[in-house]
Amino acid sequence: MTGMHPRLTTTPAATTVFTMVLTQGPVSRVEIARRTGLSSAAVTKAARPFIDAGYLEELEATERTGPGAGRPASPLVIRPDREFFIGVKITHDDLIGVVTDLRARPLASAHRPLTATAPEGVVAELAALVTGLLDTDPAYRRRCHALGLAVSGDVDKAGGLVRYSPFLGWRQVPLARLAAQATGLTVTIENDVKSLTVAEQWFGDGVGASSFALVTVGVGIGCGLVVDDRVIAGSHGVAGEIGHIPVGGDEPACHCGGRGCVEAIAGTAPLVAAVGAATGRGPLSIEAAIEAAHAGDAAARQVFDRAGHALGLAMASMANLIGPERIIVTGDVPGLAAYELFEEQVNRAFAAQAFGAAADCRVLLRPRTFEQWARGAAAVAIQTLFTV
Amino acid sequence: MTGMHPRLTTTPAATTVFTMVLTQGPVSRVEIARRTGLSSAAVTKAARPFIDAGYLEELEATERTGPGAGRPASPLVIRPDREFFIGVKITHDDLIGVVTDLRARPLASAHRPLTATAPEGVVAELAALVTGLLDTDPAYRRRCHALGLAVSGDVDKAGGLVRYSPFLGWRQVPLARLAAQATGLTVTIENDVKSLTVAEQWFGDGVGASSFALVTVGVGIGCGLVVDDRVIAGSHGVAGEIGHIPVGGDEPACHCGGRGCVEAIAGTAPLVAAVGAATGRGPLSIEAAIEAAHAGDAAARQVFDRAGHALGLAMASMANLIGPERIIVTGDVPGLAAYELFEEQVNRAFAAQAFGAAADCRVLLRPRTFEQWARGAAAVAIQTLFTV
Repeated sequence: MTGMHPRLTTTPAATTVFTMVLTQGPVSRVEIARRTGLSSAAVTKAARPFIDAGYLEELEATERTGPGAGRPASPLVIRPDREFFIGVKITHDDLIGVVTDLRARPLASAHRPLTATAPEGVVAELAALVTGLLDTDPAYRRRCHALGLAVSGDVDKAGGLVRYSPFLGWRQVPLARLAAQATGLTVTIENDVKSLTVAEQWFGDGVGASSFALVTVGVGIGCGLVVDDRVIAGSHGVAGEIGHIPVGGDEPACHCGGRGCVEAIAGTAPLVAAVGAATGRGPLSIEAAIEAAHAGDAAARQVFDRAGHALGLAMASMANLIGPERIIVTGDVPGLAAYELFEEQVNRAFAAQAFGAAADCRVLLRPRTFEQWARGAAAVAIQTLFTV
Repeated sequence: MTGMHPRLTTTPAATTVFTMVLTQGPVSRVEIARRTGLSSAAVTKAARPFIDAGYLEELEATERTGPGAGRPASPLVIRPDREFFIGVKITHDDLIGVVTDLRARPLASAHRPLTATAPEGVVAELAALVTGLLDTDPAYRRRCHALGLAVSGDVDKAGGLVRYSPFLGWRQVPLARLAAQATGLTVTIENDVKSLTVAEQWFGDGVGASSFALVTVGVGIGCGLVVDDRVIAGSHGVAGEIGHIPVGGDEPACHCGGRGCVEAIAGTAPLVAAVGAATGRGPLSIEAAIEAAHAGDAAARQVFDRAGHALGLAMASMANLIGPERIIVTGDVPGLAAYELFEEQVNRAFAAQAFGAAADCRVLLRPRTFEQWARGAAAVAIQTLFTV
């Protein structure tokens, strides 16, 4: 996190209490104490600064008359418009930005095309995008201090550095500092798949699961992993590289230098190339490849079946190692259209290769728009602000 | 944990402080505060009950005169003989037990052969083994209250239940309760690979790494994973099943129902069968298979090379997903002898398939005796006692 922002969250108890109200509220102090193991006094002490600063408020005591009724509870609830956040997903050809409230609910959005990817130019466009978003409501300018940025590639969140982003052609770009200077906001940057994972963890289909996986299907095959309530970062900056599990045997060669990687089979480019070769139609678009399979072309279908089989094996490998409670599958538009074609093969291979009870892991297909990826960047900014 | 044992550790801060002194002490309060982010007052408060109960003591203040010297520090240090622990590894044909101190250092050991694996008989032998161990020193009987048991298979530690152990032929055995009744000790049970992982985490080659993996090579290919300082358990009771990553393509079929699993290629039985078939020598022992490869038999060598290649790919898949800081490889005696034969292939395949900086993960080969596996069971008992 770069820039100035008041910090309310300075203890693990404060993180625990605020997070519980934010992601699961309204919830009473008694219930928070019960779920966290903290004492009632500790819960009250932890909540106090958030109430004083207007982030939390007490609902009026409700008389409980049902079974298990005790003394009246005064549930704590978030004041979602106490602060606003901006999240931006940076792709190689555009910026997608959203303003969200404290619950990462998108309130406004904006796009801005990029004609070049040099960091200075991108940051200038970003500043213009942010200005436009803040100008949509005077309250945003008054109560928005934090900006989250989501970028594909190897991102050093703590250092505010994009180490390597192939699509943008960036190496060692101090993006957090540049963006903070250009916008005057506190800036948090994170890998885009990890950002979407954080949004699912706190505000989406990951809520209530201490371990889950997000798998993204498209140009690449990505994966965000939450284990014991924490997004795995990897000791060497590498984690979640499900796309490079070699389930394909010796073929095909992958751009990573490995062989048989699931991304080299089920990623958009190799999938399209394989359909073109198998059908004898040569180079074609992903839409045309999907169309051919839908039309019943046996050779095209076989290519999609193989991709689904490979992805199912990779997902089973991941489940065997980590044991996620659920797997959320999403991706870009052609990626999801392809997934729908090979979903049955994915499920079949997953069930066959999952070890014992790992097969109980639920697989959920969830379309996510680019605005939702931008919301992920805002979720990272929120999580960073309220976590010790 | 089943049975009665006084609990000193009731807060996260107590766990943090005691664990740091236990695994990294002697260490001063100032240094503990610096490393943990706790206040000095919180460190002092957390340490107090452990000092009062005789688990920790203060070393005399040492005058520091080197660079960075401040006021004299009084480092905290563990009193390792304050309490003793028994750890037992249960295999299908024997019990291996050790008495350890608080640092899981083995002080005495004993073996006891098993002629049958019915739970009642095993528990009776276990009680005799424990009695023998406690009788070796009067101090053990006075200051040993906790017993850890390590069992291969699906173990529900919290419930004290062995859900399924194929080698023992056990299903739904309430081992913790049975063992507590038979020995009068507080009993903790855990999967054997996870137990050894805990020993490495607190007292072995995992110390100082917040994420690492232990890979065991032998009859099965197992894996214990520590991520963000916690051993991964898996939402459905399954985790660390590196042996069932399908790196072999469509062949061979595995006992798990999957295909191409690394365990179906590099596990002892399939390895020996493949050497027998490739050399035309038919059924042979693992020792004879290793001997053939050492003697330069090209067909035998090729089988070992393939096993090493498969294991290296599986280890790379795991590193790509989780990003461990280091990988500790161990196994049974024939497993390690085989590993030495194919270590070069493991390293080559790992380097080729590891994604980017995941290749920086260090791979350490570490022989571990059955006494060290038993020590793992004691380490689980220690960790359970001192962790909230």
